[in-house]
Amino acid sequence: MAQTVNPPRGMRDFLPAEKATREHALGVIRRSYAAHGFDEIETPVMEDSAHLHSGMGGDNEKLAFAVLRRGLGADDLAAAAAAGDVLALADLGLRFDLTVPLARFYATHRATLPPVFRSIQIAPVWRAERPQKGRYRQFVQCDIDVIGEAGQLAEIELITATAATLDALGLAGCRIRINDRRILTGLLEFWGIPAELHERALITIDKLDKIGAGGVVAELGGLGLQTEGFAETLGAVADGGWGSADPLPWLDRDAYAELLALRAAVPQVELVFDPTLVRGMGYYTGTIFEIAHADLGYSLGGGGRYDGMIGRFLGTDVPACGFSIGFERIVDLLPADAVRRSGAVVLVHDKDADAAALVALKSHLVREGRRVRLEKRSKNLKALLERAEADGFDGFAFVNADIVDAASLDIKPLG
Amino acid sequence: MAQTVNPPRGMRDFLPAEKATREHALGVIRRSYAAHGFDEIETPVMEDSAHLHSGMGGDNEKLAFAVLRRGLGADDLAAAAAAGDVLALADLGLRFDLTVPLARFYATHRATLPPVFRSIQIAPVWRAERPQKGRYRQFVQCDIDVIGEAGQLAEIELITATAATLDALGLAGCRIRINDRRILTGLLEFWGIPAELHERALITIDKLDKIGAGGVVAELGGLGLQTEGFAETLGAVADGGWGSADPLPWLDRDAYAELLALRAAVPQVELVFDPTLVRGMGYYTGTIFEIAHADLGYSLGGGGRYDGMIGRFLGTDVPACGFSIGFERIVDLLPADAVRRSGAVVLVHDKDADAAALVALKSHLVREGRRVRLEKRSKNLKALLERAEADGFDGFAFVNADIVDAASLDIKPLG
Repeated sequence: MAQTVNPPRGMRDFLPAEKATREHALGVIRRSYAAHGFDEIETPVMEDSAHLHSGMGGDNEKLAFAVLRRGLGADDLAAAAAAGDVLALADLGLRFDLTVPLARFYATHRATLPPVFRSIQIAPVWRAERPQKGRYRQFVQCDIDVIGEAGQLAEIELITATAATLDALGLAGCRIRINDRRILTGLLEFWGIPAELHERALITIDKLDKIGAGGVVAELGGLGLQTEGFAETLGAVADGGWGSADPLPWLDRDAYAELLALRAAVPQVELVFDPTLVRGMGYYTGTIFEIAHADLGYSLGGGGRYDGMIGRFLGTDVPACGFSIGFERIVDLLPADAVRRSGAVVLVHDKDADAAALVALKSHLVREGRRVRLEKRSKNLKALLERAEADGFDGFAFVNADIVDAASLDIKPLG
Repeated sequence: MAQTVNPPRGMRDFLPAEKATREHALGVIRRSYAAHGFDEIETPVMEDSAHLHSGMGGDNEKLAFAVLRRGLGADDLAAAAAAGDVLALADLGLRFDLTVPLARFYATHRATLPPVFRSIQIAPVWRAERPQKGRYRQFVQCDIDVIGEAGQLAEIELITATAATLDALGLAGCRIRINDRRILTGLLEFWGIPAELHERALITIDKLDKIGAGGVVAELGGLGLQTEGFAETLGAVADGGWGSADPLPWLDRDAYAELLALRAAVPQVELVFDPTLVRGMGYYTGTIFEIAHADLGYSLGGGGRYDGMIGRFLGTDVPACGFSIGFERIVDLLPADAVRRSGAVVLVHDKDADAAALVALKSHLVREGRRVRLEKRSKNLKALLERAEADGFDGFAFVNADIVDAASLDIKPLG
């Protein structure tokens, strides 16, 4: 009996053409990051619930899919019902990012890793968000991280490798907005906002793009803050850029000098100073950055320094800095013909052609380096050839029942 | 505070060397299957529980990890506790194989797929098995399937592509055991076993390798069957092989003739006829096959024809046949040096070398096609270079504070 069949809500199937584009892009990213000296690792898609819900994932922790403990009995259910605690029934969860698993991985394997560990993670994550256009419940992230390097070499390598990878993908027009958490702290202190409200205030400033300076000031006022002069300060920085920073009285000069040095170190990358850039996660401690594209209203990735986080698992602080590419957004921007393959040939054969001889012919062509698909000749030959072309084939040949040696094949171009 | 940090029970992290070997093997498999005209697809790791638990997954359904419904309240918990039904709290589950998701995928997208659809799926699956050596709760499967081809062309293409892929991986010594479900049915009917006990009896015969002919006969006797003559029949077929089949009185001659034709169609592959080969899954309807290796006591993969399964989702029967490679077992057999990369160089630099100049030098070498890792010079230079060699680098060079142009680099071989 036929059922209604769809992938789960907010998750996607990938058909061959999409999958080929995705694998092509992942290959480019993987090779580029590896060339820049990063090493790929992999962790399981699940982590123990206690690790996922340790406070390092911010709001994303609430979006984690929880996995039922195996072997639960009636007693466990009754106890969870009595306590009103659904999560007591779950011992595992699907990761919602790649940073928490990396911190766990590093703590597990530190003894066997080099003093400075440069990791690549290319893998799906899951968030139980309300499904909407461009937001999925399963999506791929591409992260590189440098663990164990306190100096600016980490930021320089990360930004250089990321910019080179965007180039390798053929994505022009990207620039990187940059800031430092210490500069934001300077602004909050200049405004007289008490330290315990800093995180809350940063969440508000993070909305500047969406709600404007007026909206930010109103929301900060709602926290009980005296906001006189806030709008003026925000107006002075809203344009961003290196020139506008110099006169700011609240600017953390050390952090700014480091950003200027970073800018000089990556002359091939367009770095834009944005003193209101926040990047949501509370774990950032220094430099933060985000990939912007002139034509797009959303970021294509970002990252920053998070020196305190690894210590949460390890018990010893270790400096760390990372850069994440938003793969789903980037793959949507790639040219559709990225994976056309030369030498891919469709053999259109008679229905009664000998199967063994056909596959022997196919194997011969595969050994010559070709990609080969067999297609039974159909009434609508035009549709057959159009589909083959759409699937990336660039040639075709007819195989009659009695012509099955490679030398006598007449391969014609498709399209 | 330091926590105990490990991946979840039965699941693995992959360190750089292991991950590189795995990605190398996956690339070989992906390219080989694509060359043979198969197209890669991807489905979400989760499926709706109703799809996973539709009876098509056999015993594996019991091993599915279940994912908690989001937004559960106290009422839901109380209701589940009252009904003693834990799974009522789960609406999704992690796939335990790639065949059930493929059947669901095909039913969802049939209108846009070609009449004969040849799919590749390379992806992890999850089973909550008792963790033990060589058995993991997350592992990768590599499946190819031909959907929509009722003729033997499907089996020929699948076996040819699989054998070529094992060759491409450098795995010598593989052969393929083959049988047909109809031949097994012939044996059961010859023994007078009633149809309703066939599935149960096949589970027993499947254990022949482990418990021997005596064990099989004893277990069949335990089903209440009269087993006189069973041991003698099993003895006659236990050696297997094409020659031993001819005299068997219960042999399904049509099925056997098809297997002989298949054998003639793939002369480059060693096909071994084994009339007691079962392959666990109940959904197989015709040919079944399994990869054996002379040196190993376990199979490296297998598959078969399952003409009735797609119809369970679609409402219309569609012929299907598939072949799955057991990736975890195969990757363990690969030579460890599969991914050494020529032109990979470690730059050993002074602690006070200028970071910007170092990364500029690195970028220059990357653009020349090299893989480049920066390493701070340490007291134990020998250990540093040994680690670099183990990580697949084949050269190194010293970079002093003042030598930072590529032309003056003196790259020495490692090892």
